[in-house]
Amino acid sequence: MKFIQNSKITDPKGYTAAATHAGFKRKRKDLCVIKSEIPAKCAAVFTKNVIKAAPVLAGMETLRKSGNLLQAIIINSGNANAGTGTQGLKDVAETVAFLASRIGVPEELILASSTGVIGELLDMKKMRAGIAAIYSRLSVAGGADCAEAILTTDTIEKAFGVEIDIDGVSVKICGITKGSGMIAPNMATTLAFVTTDVKIDHAALKSIFTDCVEHTYNMITVDGHMSTNDTALVMANGLAGNPEIYQNTPQAEIFKKALYELLLEMAKSIVRDGEGATKFVTIMVSQVDTFENARKMAFGIANSPLVKTAIFGQDPNWGRILSAAGMVDVVFDPDRVDLLINGTTIFRKGNPLRLDQGKVAQLMTPINLEIQLLVNNGANLAIVYTSDLSYEYIKINAEYHT
Amino acid sequence: MKFIQNSKITDPKGYTAAATHAGFKRKRKDLCVIKSEIPAKCAAVFTKNVIKAAPVLAGMETLRKSGNLLQAIIINSGNANAGTGTQGLKDVAETVAFLASRIGVPEELILASSTGVIGELLDMKKMRAGIAAIYSRLSVAGGADCAEAILTTDTIEKAFGVEIDIDGVSVKICGITKGSGMIAPNMATTLAFVTTDVKIDHAALKSIFTDCVEHTYNMITVDGHMSTNDTALVMANGLAGNPEIYQNTPQAEIFKKALYELLLEMAKSIVRDGEGATKFVTIMVSQVDTFENARKMAFGIANSPLVKTAIFGQDPNWGRILSAAGMVDVVFDPDRVDLLINGTTIFRKGNPLRLDQGKVAQLMTPINLEIQLLVNNGANLAIVYTSDLSYEYIKINAEYHT
Repeated sequence: MKFIQNSKITDPKGYTAAATHAGFKRKRKDLCVIKSEIPAKCAAVFTKNVIKAAPVLAGMETLRKSGNLLQAIIINSGNANAGTGTQGLKDVAETVAFLASRIGVPEELILASSTGVIGELLDMKKMRAGIAAIYSRLSVAGGADCAEAILTTDTIEKAFGVEIDIDGVSVKICGITKGSGMIAPNMATTLAFVTTDVKIDHAALKSIFTDCVEHTYNMITVDGHMSTNDTALVMANGLAGNPEIYQNTPQAEIFKKALYELLLEMAKSIVRDGEGATKFVTIMVSQVDTFENARKMAFGIANSPLVKTAIFGQDPNWGRILSAAGMVDVVFDPDRVDLLINGTTIFRKGNPLRLDQGKVAQLMTPINLEIQLLVNNGANLAIVYTSDLSYEYIKINAEYHT
Repeated sequence: MKFIQNSKITDPKGYTAAATHAGFKRKRKDLCVIKSEIPAKCAAVFTKNVIKAAPVLAGMETLRKSGNLLQAIIINSGNANAGTGTQGLKDVAETVAFLASRIGVPEELILASSTGVIGELLDMKKMRAGIAAIYSRLSVAGGADCAEAILTTDTIEKAFGVEIDIDGVSVKICGITKGSGMIAPNMATTLAFVTTDVKIDHAALKSIFTDCVEHTYNMITVDGHMSTNDTALVMANGLAGNPEIYQNTPQAEIFKKALYELLLEMAKSIVRDGEGATKFVTIMVSQVDTFENARKMAFGIANSPLVKTAIFGQDPNWGRILSAAGMVDVVFDPDRVDLLINGTTIFRKGNPLRLDQGKVAQLMTPINLEIQLLVNNGANLAIVYTSDLSYEYIKINAEYHT
């Protein structure tokens, strides 16, 4: 497996795309279409938030009806089309119908996705004009613009790709994703779109994708707020020409490993570009009785504003880390716990080590921090990635809407 | 029932107190002792955090052994004596023994409580010197200093008192409390100490106190981080001389109503003085199938950093409120929901109202904000109090320890 430099969503065979500035955002590109030459098998996960955006509700229905086949995606940023009621659903239907008539793909194979401000109706005049501007320009080169078109408060584009060898055939998997606030996926994520030309059994694709998302996107948090628009999906059009991959085979393992690595890089890039982030924090909670408990404790630490502000302030206030792990309804024995920051033990079996305070403070200065909690209560490990909480986060979010 | 102006913890009959600056904090008073003339019946709730501070562990044991009788409390601020392992427990024992020998109260009737930085050992030299400085000065007037002595990052003292009439006898209930970060009580609270001279059956006291805490302290949040030191307790020494109060009597109802109002004022004062708070926000989630679900949704809104920063920015980004309510694992129908801000309906039955944006923005400007979510799914109501998330919160917490 190797990562592809400067990858784009159209690197796998049979995909074309185009993007434009339709006017949902002030300046940057904010609308793109990604199309497969032929209908592709799709696996997708959506937000578990009860308040689901119109495109999420419509997209779930589309995939149900099409038997999880998909040929095109249209994504806009700048407006989430969430909290928009019945008009929001009508606008999705109109968007899909308008695009279908232009690119010659059946409506039932098109999924719309949106991200941005919640609670405002889509400006359909802009949407129609945007589609009109790009539908005839779909190309392989156009894929390079899509990463920009799905961003909101992100500061950098997030496109990644990997190439693997399946039985002598080159297979590519490429993805684009966006952050960078309202990040606390639960069985789903912010937006992540993956294309691949692999030929794979549908059940295998679904199982592998869901499992990979669970251990990548579902292990990150920026601010603990789960979005209404979370959507992660993969399209597999089979055009690479490899012998079809089935579950529980060495080929499935190769594909899964590559997809996992790709999604992990994509997910981490969201945390690195988290709103106002100055640190990239890896939280490892290990030796726990169950994975779910380890995950809860890791997220307890990752989502605590007191932990996050201490990390921003480079303050070795490790008591906050311990207390955050203790407040998530997981029973453990504090007297068996070790806490390490960047490899140095701070707290051992319930007792603080009397370390030089200057040295402990030094541990907090790197951009990449690793917090390890050894619970000494089992064999499960959860790794969660998060960022810190800075003045800039407040600035971005106190002024985002107005 | 009437509130007592400038109340102090020693207003009920039979209590004396004293406070001093022992040196745990830089300047302000940081150590106090409150004593009842005779052993008092006590009811207490402690943090549900698995990581419990040494004084919490010791205090729970003390009350268990004494049959919930208590005659004196010693409280220090500036150091939480949490995450301090076996030495922390020894330090509590030494503190209690030292105080017992000075004030002539048995060790088993003294409870120690601490608040402040986690993970540092108590400076016992300062503790002994502090006790030596105050044990002989216990007086009714000394009660006025105690509210200051328990504060950490709080900007104002929080002392409240009420007076009621029980069968023609005047009964007083007075309390002191502190905030103002690490506030997300769960069946317990930050620190809250209540004294009363009421004569009351022990079972009634326990039941009434627990119930009142559940609907006051357990309904506030500043930053969603549950403390290691949360302790709320009431001492009732019976010296008012009223006929003893038993459960399910009109007298019990009068006492309960007064205690509830007192605790509610105390709890609200913590939110008003929340770290960096510029707004006092009341979140009412009503018409819900169960109280627990209403509570979860209200806390989902109250703890979302995206909601809190929007409130700080006076940004009517109500989509964040809706989406926060939807992310807490409570099933409801978004199409039946109404959202009101300060009495104005913004969103009705799943659809946004097309209101003048300027008018909506105006709704966000008062210091006191009321957010109402009508779920239209039952008859339960939860009211949660919270503050916003400001630059000042980051400042306080990025620089607290160092």
